[in-house]
Amino acid sequence: MDLLFLGTSAGVPTRERNVSATALIEASGRGWYLIDCGEGTQHQILRTPLSLSELRGIFITHVHADHCLGLPGLLASTGMSGRTRPLDIILPAALHTWLTLSLSVTQSHLPFEIHLHAVESLDHWRNGNVEVSTVELSHRVPCHGYVFTEADPAPRLDVQRLDAEGIERGPLWGELAHGQDVLHDGRWLRAQDYLLRARPPQRIIVCGDNDRPELLAEVAASADVLVHEATFIQAAIDKTRASYGHSSAAAVAGFAEAVGVRNLVLTHFSARYQANPAQHPSIEDVRSEAAALYNGELILARDLQRYHFDQQGHL
Amino acid sequence: MDLLFLGTSAGVPTRERNVSATALIEASGRGWYLIDCGEGTQHQILRTPLSLSELRGIFITHVHADHCLGLPGLLASTGMSGRTRPLDIILPAALHTWLTLSLSVTQSHLPFEIHLHAVESLDHWRNGNVEVSTVELSHRVPCHGYVFTEADPAPRLDVQRLDAEGIERGPLWGELAHGQDVLHDGRWLRAQDYLLRARPPQRIIVCGDNDRPELLAEVAASADVLVHEATFIQAAIDKTRASYGHSSAAAVAGFAEAVGVRNLVLTHFSARYQANPAQHPSIEDVRSEAAALYNGELILARDLQRYHFDQQGHL
Repeated sequence: MDLLFLGTSAGVPTRERNVSATALIEASGRGWYLIDCGEGTQHQILRTPLSLSELRGIFITHVHADHCLGLPGLLASTGMSGRTRPLDIILPAALHTWLTLSLSVTQSHLPFEIHLHAVESLDHWRNGNVEVSTVELSHRVPCHGYVFTEADPAPRLDVQRLDAEGIERGPLWGELAHGQDVLHDGRWLRAQDYLLRARPPQRIIVCGDNDRPELLAEVAASADVLVHEATFIQAAIDKTRASYGHSSAAAVAGFAEAVGVRNLVLTHFSARYQANPAQHPSIEDVRSEAAALYNGELILARDLQRYHFDQQGHL
Repeated sequence: MDLLFLGTSAGVPTRERNVSATALIEASGRGWYLIDCGEGTQHQILRTPLSLSELRGIFITHVHADHCLGLPGLLASTGMSGRTRPLDIILPAALHTWLTLSLSVTQSHLPFEIHLHAVESLDHWRNGNVEVSTVELSHRVPCHGYVFTEADPAPRLDVQRLDAEGIERGPLWGELAHGQDVLHDGRWLRAQDYLLRARPPQRIIVCGDNDRPELLAEVAASADVLVHEATFIQAAIDKTRASYGHSSAAAVAGFAEAVGVRNLVLTHFSARYQANPAQHPSIEDVRSEAAALYNGELILARDLQRYHFDQQGHL
């Protein structure tokens, strides 16, 4: 799966970074999922190859403005782009009335159905390609992280078994490869009996705002990639004695190292951290604080940057 | 006064044009007014010298998504920038509940008061520098244009009268020049008796969506600048027999010529009109249609372009 960051700034946009939004793209490269949708997310999408008609679901972590205000505009523009396929949106229950009102008061008549699901009561969500579960985080308001696990990554035919059973190569093999059960010599062959898992399913966690990384201990241990906010460096929190419900780069890096996360992507940086390393404080201060405590693959997300997670487990 | 266009696309943003928002800047160059606030307006402001603390009022023309969805985010970011001065917002009554809910549900606690005024029942609005009245337009939903008139442009002291009355040059002159009445030799001198209007007040009309330019006949005749949508060219409307409540460039240009508008600024172009004149259809098709019918100063607005209206009446 790939990650494409659409917004990596905390609270307010800057000229280089938009507010929160992250795209997770299926290994096949077509379907994708949107986690958070700050204002201007639809504008960022215009600068990527992402297609609004291939969007499979939207997942909002919490109610704060910089994580959800782009939703009505994104949906209105998706409607104008001609989408008809229904769209699932998982979001805090508190936002349901607001989203519905936003669309009705602006007379944004969508040509597709939207299905709203309350994240608080979501057990899990899945389609043919991914399964999504949630993890509760700690912030000034209720907040969730989303755990994306590939449902059945790139299965391949068990040719050895087919040969052993004398099932001859032909169109039937193709049907089984596509997951279809088929009738053969009077008996049903179940596709799942003739498919091998090509590789272990990838698991990527995309978090909302969170001041207690340890809440992720259980899910992070089995994840290939953890995407987590690092709004401040620790010295900034110590100085003001206020974290506003956020984590420092040090806290997240220390946690990831302790749990053994192989790939850590930091995002959601305070606007004070300049892109230019010659200025102070800069994003390099965040990087060096995290790098000092974490030995895995460390990435500081940048807007419109796409990260490919390969089958060897590297980002 | 100056005009600075923050969004000139109709309906959806493009890579070159954002959705509707126009800044009108006082001749003094500090205070400014925002007409419409599509999603991403706060992002565009980051690319201008405009200061959110010098914003004097927001004026929304109608409820459609591309004209108002940027309001909650703009206000939230204005709050985070530390503004404390109250802010007047004139908008359709239907948007009041939505705007209030958008701020409360996202927990955007503003450190300044907002005063909401229903455009439908607004007689006029003024502060020390401009007076604003409305004009009803015709669209798929109720829609208004806003007429900005300078309240008292750059007054200068009537030195001849002061000399004739034997009032000696000194600090008192300065107080009169700043509009303050002063006590002199036992009698009150009223500032307005000693101030001359340096030039006639400028008047600029910024319209919302409108398919009947003739509704502007009365106000446009006395205006220095008319800013009006030209979503399509006439051939496009003729072909589909649908204007969606919009005007063609030809209709607006023909109207402006008939009424004698000296400066016409077209904006709110369908995303189909490409910026590159080598592509078809392009924004040059809109320009040539309007230019064929209008002999005044014609401008096709571009995002982030600032137009200065000089004292000789030229944009």
